[in-house]
Amino acid sequence: MIIVIQCRDRVGLVAAIAGILAEEQLNIVSMREHVGKAENRFFMRLELEQAGQPVGHPEPEQDRSGASLQESVPARLQEKMKTLLPEGALIAVNPLPEKKVVVLVSKEYHCLADILVRHYFKTLGASVQCVIGNHTILKDICRRFDMPFYLAEQESRIMEILSGHRPDYIILAKFMRILSPAAVSAFPMRIINIHHSFLPAFAGAHPYRQAFSRGVKLIGATAHFVTDQLDEGPIIAQEIIPVNHSFTPSDMIRAGKEIETSVLAKALGLLFEDRVFVCRNKTVVFE
Amino acid sequence: MIIVIQCRDRVGLVAAIAGILAEEQLNIVSMREHVGKAENRFFMRLELEQAGQPVGHPEPEQDRSGASLQESVPARLQEKMKTLLPEGALIAVNPLPEKKVVVLVSKEYHCLADILVRHYFKTLGASVQCVIGNHTILKDICRRFDMPFYLAEQESRIMEILSGHRPDYIILAKFMRILSPAAVSAFPMRIINIHHSFLPAFAGAHPYRQAFSRGVKLIGATAHFVTDQLDEGPIIAQEIIPVNHSFTPSDMIRAGKEIETSVLAKALGLLFEDRVFVCRNKTVVFE
Amino acid sequence: MIIVIQCRDRVGLVAAIAGILAEEQLNIVSMREHVGKAENRFFMRLELEQAGQPVGHPEPEQDRSGASLQESVPARLQEKMKTLLPEGALIAVNPLPEKKVVVLVSKEYHCLADILVRHYFKTLGASVQCVIGNHTILKDICRRFDMPFYLAEQESRIMEILSGHRPDYIILAKFMRILSPAAVSAFPMRIINIHHSFLPAFAGAHPYRQAFSRGVKLIGATAHFVTDQLDEGPIIAQEIIPVNHSFTPSDMIRAGKEIETSVLAKALGLLFEDRVFVCRNKTVVFE
Amino acid sequence: MIIVIQCRDRVGLVAAIAGILAEEQLNIVSMREHVGKAENRFFMRLELEQAGQPVGHPEPEQDRSGASLQESVPARLQEKMKTLLPEGALIAVNPLPEKKVVVLVSKEYHCLADILVRHYFKTLGASVQCVIGNHTILKDICRRFDMPFYLAEQESRIMEILSGHRPDYIILAKFMRILSPAAVSAFPMRIINIHHSFLPAFAGAHPYRQAFSRGVKLIGATAHFVTDQLDEGPIIAQEIIPVNHSFTPSDMIRAGKEIETSVLAKALGLLFEDRVFVCRNKTVVFE
Repeated sequence: MIIVIQCRDRVGLVAAIAGILAEEQLNIVSMREHVGKAENRFFMRLELEQAGQPVGHPEPEQDRSGASLQESVPARLQEKMKTLLPEGALIAVNPLPEKKVVVLVSKEYHCLADILVRHYFKTLGASVQCVIGNHTILKDICRRFDMPFYLAEQESRIMEILSGHRPDYIILAKFMRILSPAAVSAFPMRIINIHHSFLPAFAGAHPYRQAFSRGVKLIGATAHFVTDQLDEGPIIAQEIIPVNHSFTPSDMIRAGKEIETSVLAKALGLLFEDRVFVCRNKTVVFE
Repeated sequence: MIIVIQCRDRVGLVAAIAGILAEEQLNIVSMREHVGKAENRFFMRLELEQAGQPVGHPEPEQDRSGASLQESVPARLQEKMKTLLPEGALIAVNPLPEKKVVVLVSKEYHCLADILVRHYFKTLGASVQCVIGNHTILKDICRRFDMPFYLAEQESRIMEILSGHRPDYIILAKFMRILSPAAVSAFPMRIINIHHSFLPAFAGAHPYRQAFSRGVKLIGATAHFVTDQLDEGPIIAQEIIPVNHSFTPSDMIRAGKEIETSVLAKALGLLFEDRVFVCRNKTVVFE
Repeated sequence: MIIVIQCRDRVGLVAAIAGILAEEQLNIVSMREHVGKAENRFFMRLELEQAGQPVGHPEPEQDRSGASLQESVPARLQEKMKTLLPEGALIAVNPLPEKKVVVLVSKEYHCLADILVRHYFKTLGASVQCVIGNHTILKDICRRFDMPFYLAEQESRIMEILSGHRPDYIILAKFMRILSPAAVSAFPMRIINIHHSFLPAFAGAHPYRQAFSRGVKLIGATAHFVTDQLDEGPIIAQEIIPVNHSFTPSDMIRAGKEIETSVLAKALGLLFEDRVFVCRNKTVVFE
Repeated sequence: MIIVIQCRDRVGLVAAIAGILAEEQLNIVSMREHVGKAENRFFMRLELEQAGQPVGHPEPEQDRSGASLQESVPARLQEKMKTLLPEGALIAVNPLPEKKVVVLVSKEYHCLADILVRHYFKTLGASVQCVIGNHTILKDICRRFDMPFYLAEQESRIMEILSGHRPDYIILAKFMRILSPAAVSAFPMRIINIHHSFLPAFAGAHPYRQAFSRGVKLIGATAHFVTDQLDEGPIIAQEIIPVNHSFTPSDMIRAGKEIETSVLAKALGLLFEDRVFVCRNKTVVFE
């Protein structure tokens, strides 16, 4: 069972939370907490098991719904926590393991194919409902995985499809287009983008071309939440790879695809295991 | 104020500990815990401050002795914890920030010089009492930092010097000699060695020569506690760097010195901030 | 056009080779050379273009067959080089860009799926002829990519299928079984394995279990040629990722799959671009 | 013996150069070349030995002056090359191994101490003539290494000291002040700065504070040549380290110092071994 908590900070929070768990005879398998000092905000993620239960680290592919727990426990926990924690606390006991996601793509295949493969083998940790593309080139790979593919060039059409699916998260897997403020505000902190640079370096268009002409020795990729400010949303994960003078822009693009794929995969794994919290324009990530 | 706790695991430990802290009006600035399932062992590290105190992440160069806390708090905490925690629990409230260390060296300067520089600029987080070498070559660099240097070739003489200084930790900064079981057992889990390979690969002598002839594409360094089993003690930190076919053994040695220095520095930083616990033949490291 | 050369070393080789290229009015786009001193062996890889040709770094997905070159050039080059280079020199002018490969698998999907995706999108740099598995679990993913899949549990049956396809390389994409010396010797330095540790650490079975019980802080993966000596063949590529005390063996397995996939992909990319030479039990890799 | 060559590109350059070396019975131990296509510029670095000589990769601490070569060889080589290579070619046969450098500092010790230690142990590959600081805090560490230290707050005074020493390179080891265009133009591509971010991200002042408020997951350091454009000069080396939500700005500063030290050390090593070429606003680095 996973519990994630987010609330105003104050003395005694950990004691209150841990006290409830002890009362319920729940073992703390893993506990991570963070206090955002400037924001006076408390974040916690707990993995629990019932005392005496056989131990097992929850694998993403496993049932994390806590079937082994008495069904009454999560509801009771939630109730008790609400009473003890500061007003306005966000508490999710036993977050649904299967987030629903929609993937938006353009022409590049690498991030999408990685998602489709993990989805097919049930290691993505989320359920992909459909793929929306503004180009037909990736339709066939979707078909091969029995994944619905919608061609939609207008944002209004995209929004229509999204509203039919009601996804928890929208993944921009190299979507290469900017969503309107209206679209972004319809899914606050629920749209994830992969940007092909180590932001804030080379925000905007053509980061590899920018990287080439600046002569950097590292190129990167950044997975982040999308906000109204282009490439300015909270960063979830970043990675880099070394490059050198022998790299042409197209070498950089090729090399960059590898880390774009791996950074997005990493960010999604963290997100789908309820390890990512947003705190103003930053993230708290319990890896 | 830092508290480190190590004891048998059981339900309710976190609640008990957090309850005491809340009673004392102590804020939890940072909390890390781990349960070694196989060993049924609980590990925790807490950074605390008194409620209402100005906040500040403890820097190693700062006074971490908790001068701002009422003097009675640490003793009272220790007392309360002893009562509540399982018998045999190891509790260190407010660990002394200034560990005392002795450094053992042979001919290579890189790790020693790094330690001397950090010590001189008060960023080592420990007090170096003296350096013992089995060769005179590093005597001059010690002199330049007003650091006592003892030439000692026999282990018996080394032990004599050590027993005069009573260090908390002994650092083998490329000592290149094997201590006898008697010497090791005199300082259990208090001797730290830097080995010039990513253990367990290339244990024993001449790891770079071994790495060269095996044609590996990575070379590494490992900081570990010394036990009776050569190169088999609990690992604290490891790092690697890429190499390729153009590296001669001496290129590898040269490149390796850089990570030997940085891995040892990292391991010592963790150790001196009370972030390293030993659990059988492994470490729990709260980075 | 790519030229790879391997021969006994002697003074004047570069001058001889470069002289021929200048005669043919060929520009050297990229030149890499290495001399194995102990073996007295010379290795060179050249990327060339005809003077006055529009420049373009050869992308793996592009035609590297040098269509823009006069057809007579490669043959003439080969001829001239043979005359000038030491007896027994291996010279490949314009190596065929499309290596033919067969992939052997067992139950794990990650490396295979990555290969199938790259193959489908024509970025693998080689042509996959078929997949041979000792278990049916990966049959369906092959079918989805229209890739022939053979179930073969006996090595004799595997050899039969291989001899029908005559692949340039055989990729053990988590095959998890040991080939007999006879099978290995049928494809000398043409079988590539991905081993799930940073060899030579944790050779043999269950490397993650070994890594867990040793308490290492890094886990790795190694792509290497298969020889008669288990896990002892020439290493092509290695990578590591950090782990810590909170990783269970199954966490390590999960994390390890990511680098297994990426290390194998990297090694195959190098191999298929003719960047890997074998020199006794090591590789020379011109990245 | 090392030769570095830089000139206009044209067909036959390698053949011409290699031909001269073969005439002189010189073995090519290592050869690296690059053609800047956009700039039509050719770069080459050669390590040579006389045929029949005992082999040894030149270590920076060794005499690289080629004492084993007949004294006439370098001059003759230089002469022959001048005749064959395009007009305006820059040819340095047997570059002087001991570059002379002056280090400019402010209050932070880490980069300076690393340079002083390497200099003292003769592994820097250059001769430090003096240190100039705008603050007295680092005077004592210089004294301990018998290194002249000048306190100079005005640029005019700094220039005066520099003109007395005529250094090959000026190292800004956390100098934290901007040199005037006049000062920069007095030492074109001979001033090296260490900037505490992965440029171009967080150029200008307080990069760690910027990194903290942006919530990046990586912080970096960049060694680059100083030009009139602040933080815009050719980049020599860059490295990053991971950070997370638990890092305060001062944690980032502390962690950053480690990579600042190592990136500057790496860049200087490359520079002093004649591995760095400048090509417009980028570098060609033969690692």
